[in-house]
Amino acid sequence: MGPGNATADTLQAAEELGRKIASQGWVLLTGGRNAGVMDAASKGAKAANGLTVGILPSADRSGMSPNVDIPIVTDVGSARNNINVLSSDLVIACGVGMGTMSEVLLAAKAGKQVILLEQTGSSTAFLKEFNSQLMHFVSLPAEAISLAKKLL
Amino acid sequence: MGPGNATADTLQAAEELGRKIASQGWVLLTGGRNAGVMDAASKGAKAANGLTVGILPSADRSGMSPNVDIPIVTDVGSARNNINVLSSDLVIACGVGMGTMSEVLLAAKAGKQVILLEQTGSSTAFLKEFNSQLMHFVSLPAEAISLAKKLL
Amino acid sequence: MGPGNATADTLQAAEELGRKIASQGWVLLTGGRNAGVMDAASKGAKAANGLTVGILPSADRSGMSPNVDIPIVTDVGSARNNINVLSSDLVIACGVGMGTMSEVLLAAKAGKQVILLEQTGSSTAFLKEFNSQLMHFVSLPAEAISLAKKLL
Amino acid sequence: MGPGNATADTLQAAEELGRKIASQGWVLLTGGRNAGVMDAASKGAKAANGLTVGILPSADRSGMSPNVDIPIVTDVGSARNNINVLSSDLVIACGVGMGTMSEVLLAAKAGKQVILLEQTGSSTAFLKEFNSQLMHFVSLPAEAISLAKKLL
Repeated sequence: MGPGNATADTLQAAEELGRKIASQGWVLLTGGRNAGVMDAASKGAKAANGLTVGILPSADRSGMSPNVDIPIVTDVGSARNNINVLSSDLVIACGVGMGTMSEVLLAAKAGKQVILLEQTGSSTAFLKEFNSQLMHFVSLPAEAISLAKKLL
Repeated sequence: MGPGNATADTLQAAEELGRKIASQGWVLLTGGRNAGVMDAASKGAKAANGLTVGILPSADRSGMSPNVDIPIVTDVGSARNNINVLSSDLVIACGVGMGTMSEVLLAAKAGKQVILLEQTGSSTAFLKEFNSQLMHFVSLPAEAISLAKKLL
Repeated sequence: MGPGNATADTLQAAEELGRKIASQGWVLLTGGRNAGVMDAASKGAKAANGLTVGILPSADRSGMSPNVDIPIVTDVGSARNNINVLSSDLVIACGVGMGTMSEVLLAAKAGKQVILLEQTGSSTAFLKEFNSQLMHFVSLPAEAISLAKKLL
Repeated sequence: MGPGNATADTLQAAEELGRKIASQGWVLLTGGRNAGVMDAASKGAKAANGLTVGILPSADRSGMSPNVDIPIVTDVGSARNNINVLSSDLVIACGVGMGTMSEVLLAAKAGKQVILLEQTGSSTAFLKEFNSQLMHFVSLPAEAISLAKKLL
């Protein structure tokens, strides 16, 4: 999970995450749009011959990332954020955005493990205040994958 | 798409549809539950080495068909029926049930092609009254696949 | 519940239903759009000083009936049909349309009492085949209200 | 909007908000459950003869606040958070919780004005980082109402 608008660093981390997720043989699930972290992660996964699922907010496939193999067309707008987290074995949030942070909160509320990277000082302080055993902060894509393997 | 409770004939048609869909190299999308047409079609697709997606109404994977590869956990109950039809390139409805018929109607409303089999006289008469160019009635799984190839 | 496109007879029945629902002191809940049965029923209810709720499919209030007091903006498209029926103590379906019939089916599936009027021969035959104790066919708005009082 | 679990101070603020919202002649919309801020605000509104709407996550009215006049039964779980914010003219968030903060983020993302009170230092710092013109921080219910009147 990650924002549609992201810095070059965050996009690079997302693409690396996508590659590594695919390399593990895992299916990558994103918000499916042709933007930011969603697209970068899907692109990375496809480069490593992975399988990608995109949970789209719209009523059709317009605006879909070309790197999505299996589009799920929900037509429920931002309500699809909850479908994203419930459908995931584990959530990796890369970057900070309104939609992304809503997903992190919904994921922890639903009892899902969440690994966070590319966070800011204030997002980290804010999320740590919930004192959730489910939120894990890492610095690098490799650490995220390594931790994910332990948590799954 | 098809009912969770179905006759032996309808289940056999569903399993054959699943096999044939997978043989075409198509992805099978169903309602994902471990019941009736959803499960039979998924079972058929897996027997032919297909890929199966299940759009679950529930908040977790309980009650999921063991033949689903990619579960989408929606937690939106029967509202997931609309996600089923919007996510499909084409809808094949096998059998008659309240949920299934709601999907046929939502599909045609959304402008999706719908192929119907294992219908009754009254479901056929009812659906034909809408005079929709999108609804197609066939008798056999092989006819459904053949027509789907033309429509896609 | 009723179609956005309806005949003059169906619209007249809808408006009368709205008036009578309001006269009972009941809250009228519709799909909220400025079209067909939804608008006619809401108009009737407002003429009798009733309170009207509209469950909108859209992301904002564009296209809302001016006769809706309390708009619920869902942004879930046709998936809001299930919210319509679950939020109602009892469903009255006036007229035949794809969306309306999907609501009748979802309502009966959810165990809600459904009163139907302004049906066709084939919709009646189709719905009766489900042999549901929950579906009741009447001819006039006054009969619908009278039956609703018994069922509630 | 506010958490199901809240401190005595936050609950008192919520009840006062409910009273003041009703006194303005406004309709109060909450998440509808019989818990925390939702229930306290609805209780306050009813004490001032207000009208209360509750957008329930569940498939029926179990767990509903007795202070809700108009229950909307969504059966979409936490996806109803987005319906809460889209249906509101303006969002007042009282307290900090995972669901509540997801609503604040979804509201700002949807372009809704959000007034926040009963926040912590870290939630305030985090939300301010989005630099949104839509988020307003106040200390007292009276300030929230006063600001809401200006913003509406």
